[in-house]
Amino acid sequence: MPHPDALTIAGQTFTSRLMVGTGKYADLHVMRDAIDASGAQIVTVAIRRVELGAPGHDGLLDALDLDRLQLLPNTAGCRTPDEAVRVAKLARALTGVNWLKLEVIPDPRWLLPDPVGTLRAAEMLVGEGFTVLPYIQPDGVLARALERAGCATVMPLASPIGSGRGLRARELVKTVIDDATVPVVVDAGLGVPSDAAQALELGADAVLVNTALAEARDPVGMARAFRLGVEAGRAAYLAGRMPARDGASASSPTAGVPRLPDPEVPA
Amino acid sequence: MPHPDALTIAGQTFTSRLMVGTGKYADLHVMRDAIDASGAQIVTVAIRRVELGAPGHDGLLDALDLDRLQLLPNTAGCRTPDEAVRVAKLARALTGVNWLKLEVIPDPRWLLPDPVGTLRAAEMLVGEGFTVLPYIQPDGVLARALERAGCATVMPLASPIGSGRGLRARELVKTVIDDATVPVVVDAGLGVPSDAAQALELGADAVLVNTALAEARDPVGMARAFRLGVEAGRAAYLAGRMPARDGASASSPTAGVPRLPDPEVPA
Amino acid sequence: MPHPDALTIAGQTFTSRLMVGTGKYADLHVMRDAIDASGAQIVTVAIRRVELGAPGHDGLLDALDLDRLQLLPNTAGCRTPDEAVRVAKLARALTGVNWLKLEVIPDPRWLLPDPVGTLRAAEMLVGEGFTVLPYIQPDGVLARALERAGCATVMPLASPIGSGRGLRARELVKTVIDDATVPVVVDAGLGVPSDAAQALELGADAVLVNTALAEARDPVGMARAFRLGVEAGRAAYLAGRMPARDGASASSPTAGVPRLPDPEVPA
Amino acid sequence: MPHPDALTIAGQTFTSRLMVGTGKYADLHVMRDAIDASGAQIVTVAIRRVELGAPGHDGLLDALDLDRLQLLPNTAGCRTPDEAVRVAKLARALTGVNWLKLEVIPDPRWLLPDPVGTLRAAEMLVGEGFTVLPYIQPDGVLARALERAGCATVMPLASPIGSGRGLRARELVKTVIDDATVPVVVDAGLGVPSDAAQALELGADAVLVNTALAEARDPVGMARAFRLGVEAGRAAYLAGRMPARDGASASSPTAGVPRLPDPEVPA
Repeated sequence: MPHPDALTIAGQTFTSRLMVGTGKYADLHVMRDAIDASGAQIVTVAIRRVELGAPGHDGLLDALDLDRLQLLPNTAGCRTPDEAVRVAKLARALTGVNWLKLEVIPDPRWLLPDPVGTLRAAEMLVGEGFTVLPYIQPDGVLARALERAGCATVMPLASPIGSGRGLRARELVKTVIDDATVPVVVDAGLGVPSDAAQALELGADAVLVNTALAEARDPVGMARAFRLGVEAGRAAYLAGRMPARDGASASSPTAGVPRLPDPEVPA
Repeated sequence: MPHPDALTIAGQTFTSRLMVGTGKYADLHVMRDAIDASGAQIVTVAIRRVELGAPGHDGLLDALDLDRLQLLPNTAGCRTPDEAVRVAKLARALTGVNWLKLEVIPDPRWLLPDPVGTLRAAEMLVGEGFTVLPYIQPDGVLARALERAGCATVMPLASPIGSGRGLRARELVKTVIDDATVPVVVDAGLGVPSDAAQALELGADAVLVNTALAEARDPVGMARAFRLGVEAGRAAYLAGRMPARDGASASSPTAGVPRLPDPEVPA
Repeated sequence: MPHPDALTIAGQTFTSRLMVGTGKYADLHVMRDAIDASGAQIVTVAIRRVELGAPGHDGLLDALDLDRLQLLPNTAGCRTPDEAVRVAKLARALTGVNWLKLEVIPDPRWLLPDPVGTLRAAEMLVGEGFTVLPYIQPDGVLARALERAGCATVMPLASPIGSGRGLRARELVKTVIDDATVPVVVDAGLGVPSDAAQALELGADAVLVNTALAEARDPVGMARAFRLGVEAGRAAYLAGRMPARDGASASSPTAGVPRLPDPEVPA
Repeated sequence: MPHPDALTIAGQTFTSRLMVGTGKYADLHVMRDAIDASGAQIVTVAIRRVELGAPGHDGLLDALDLDRLQLLPNTAGCRTPDEAVRVAKLARALTGVNWLKLEVIPDPRWLLPDPVGTLRAAEMLVGEGFTVLPYIQPDGVLARALERAGCATVMPLASPIGSGRGLRARELVKTVIDDATVPVVVDAGLGVPSDAAQALELGADAVLVNTALAEARDPVGMARAFRLGVEAGRAAYLAGRMPARDGASASSPTAGVPRLPDPEVPA
């Protein structure tokens, strides 16, 4: 029986709406346990660092249970569309997976993606048969262009990568969600489960986190916390929130209730 | 085996950190199902409205599974300490329960509690043997005074009752949590599970919600969502969040990673 | 001719809505120049520190142009109502001024005022003929009680003293402003002129700042900035702001405008 | 003598950092008075609506004192780069002014600009000798690309046009300001002077407002308020704000101050 609220990306369905990264963990055991606790079914890996044996990336692919997990190679570290396309092809050759989290990040300080370069790279990669999930700023017009180019999702940032500041550009993320025809995955900047829940409550289809787990005091406990937060936010979205009000509203309205006469009650 | 992270109030332990109200529901069946779905073990009831048969309160006590639930009578609708004390005694006589959520609310517009009247009533009720859980504004000095008076918890508001605006006075709620010697229960104004999660992440021991469930499109689904949100926030608090940063921080640091040479990869 | 928008406190009128403190300045010259630049007409001084010759307070009263300024002695450092009343009398004896900024602050960590003690001290001081301006948390019920006790204003905090975090408890400050019958002066926690402007836009009658000036890189420049910010906020309050909207609204609406035909324009 | 803190755009200097629009006013007299009160030296006009005689745009150019004001024609209503370029040329032919506020807005709902189309149009217009001020989302990477293309400023939005919600995407606007080599003008979404002050305090060089003035109850009073708010924010930026703190910090530190002995003061 199909899950009543599955997430479908490029024809594949997932019951988890939490995606996770693999960077910054103290060791691969902690990483694996955190991924297990998160319930994530999609896991992203920086291909350049795997290839180059960057610290913490050696043996990374072997540590992942790829029978159960959808691998999502990413192009972290790529500054131009050409570089991203080359690394994408390397990723496919190396892993046999044609899903790609596309990152074109020329900005060394804020690690922000390039809108024009990302669109160009996405067009090329879709043409090469990739399933492309591009990382973008919360720009609704760019998101529409990427959909038209054939991307499988759009992944707007909540706040700068690794900042843990949460859903700071809430109104702009909302413009990406509105009228989206592909799943919206909020990526980057989420620090605590309430941030993830907010994104889902707003109508995002999923979130991706990495630093919030890897840098928690207890990454495995935090992974479980995010799993619950994502489920909470999605359940709230489906249940339909109360209206927010400017004023107060009594939980137990008094309209029509006579004032109590001085009661004679036993002490 | 004791629960590893139980909440203890006045010597009683609870595994749930979500308390719920009973007002504003369309009917008692929905209320009961929502309470079940919330996993709440403490349920508050407005005694005056029960006594007076206010709309929606007739048969309310019978609808609650009091074998499983700790009843928490409240003094909603009381404007003065004397009135609150009289209703408290009525509550005890009526229910046999000596727990009391103390509300002294003289303000018809914002439904805000009276700090001086609440402290006076609390002192009287503690002297009468009640277990007192006072509803207050997020005032750390008043909270300390209520602790000294023997209250079992303090219950600061997040934003005005029924407003659903969330944890607006975050910094002030933090001053109540800091150095508290009794459990802090954030009460009033929470609209969505992320609001509840935020309170727990900040260090609150529990939350109480009513309108957010009763006025959701699907109260039972929202009750389940809040249950998950509270569990997420508590788990995150225990796991220790990552530091929030002003700037960005790469998930997969590039320090020490040589730039990739032009790779020859198969298309 | 009377100023068209004067602030009246206890029968005295002021054209400035910015009050300032005298603590933390590098030296008294900078303080005096900053006060001049601020345009403030009401200046608060910690009497205990003056009396005790605390660092930076020696000669402070002589440095103020008391012909032009309304002195507002305060009871900073007092932890109980009795202590505050004693210092108030000392202030009056020392300065000949019966205005008093009442601070009863038992909390060493957050420097938060005691609601119950503040009300008690206010009642005593009003009885002794003082013009009392009490420092409080943003508690609308307490504010009403202080008005009834005869206070000349209420002074709710924006965020903890010296934190510079701005108007964090905006909704609660609003509950103090609503229905107030005496001027509301937002005091403590304002860090930049936009914070002050926000308070005035919300309907506060005035603000008081100290640390934001004294700890600026250029206290005199910042004093001028706050003067402008307060004037901006007041002018906006009087002019009536546009409604905030969820969506967008074109500055130059297109409704009824035919689409332009391909224009033949000269290059 | 040159103004000590002038704003320079494309070699021209201005003493005002507040730019204004001309849409939505009840009539041209109110518009003119509001522009006067704002002190603005740069005024933007929707050329298509002028040309087409859209409601409120008839006679608009004649109503502006173009001896004193720098006219800034804009391409509001243009959905594609080609359309914007054509309207830009029309604007230059019609007004003799080669400054241009570039708007390429394909999105009918949120009125958000197209990053790719805006960059393409900017490149063409710079090549045609225009002084280009492009309206963009708060995207630091796009901003750098527009600088490299020869734009005279970048104009990131604070929140959607006409929403009056203020500086919602503060962190992202900051990424545009950081390292900018041309002036940054925050445009769209500012509702009250404190919003404008915040933008200047953050380091923006100027702001542009329209709806906030035109839809105020008193547009002329609000224009004066914004003028003051912008001056306040700029002055604060230059003066260097105090650090924001998590905790409190006494205005009049008690360190080293002996506790007052019981004073014997006259009543």
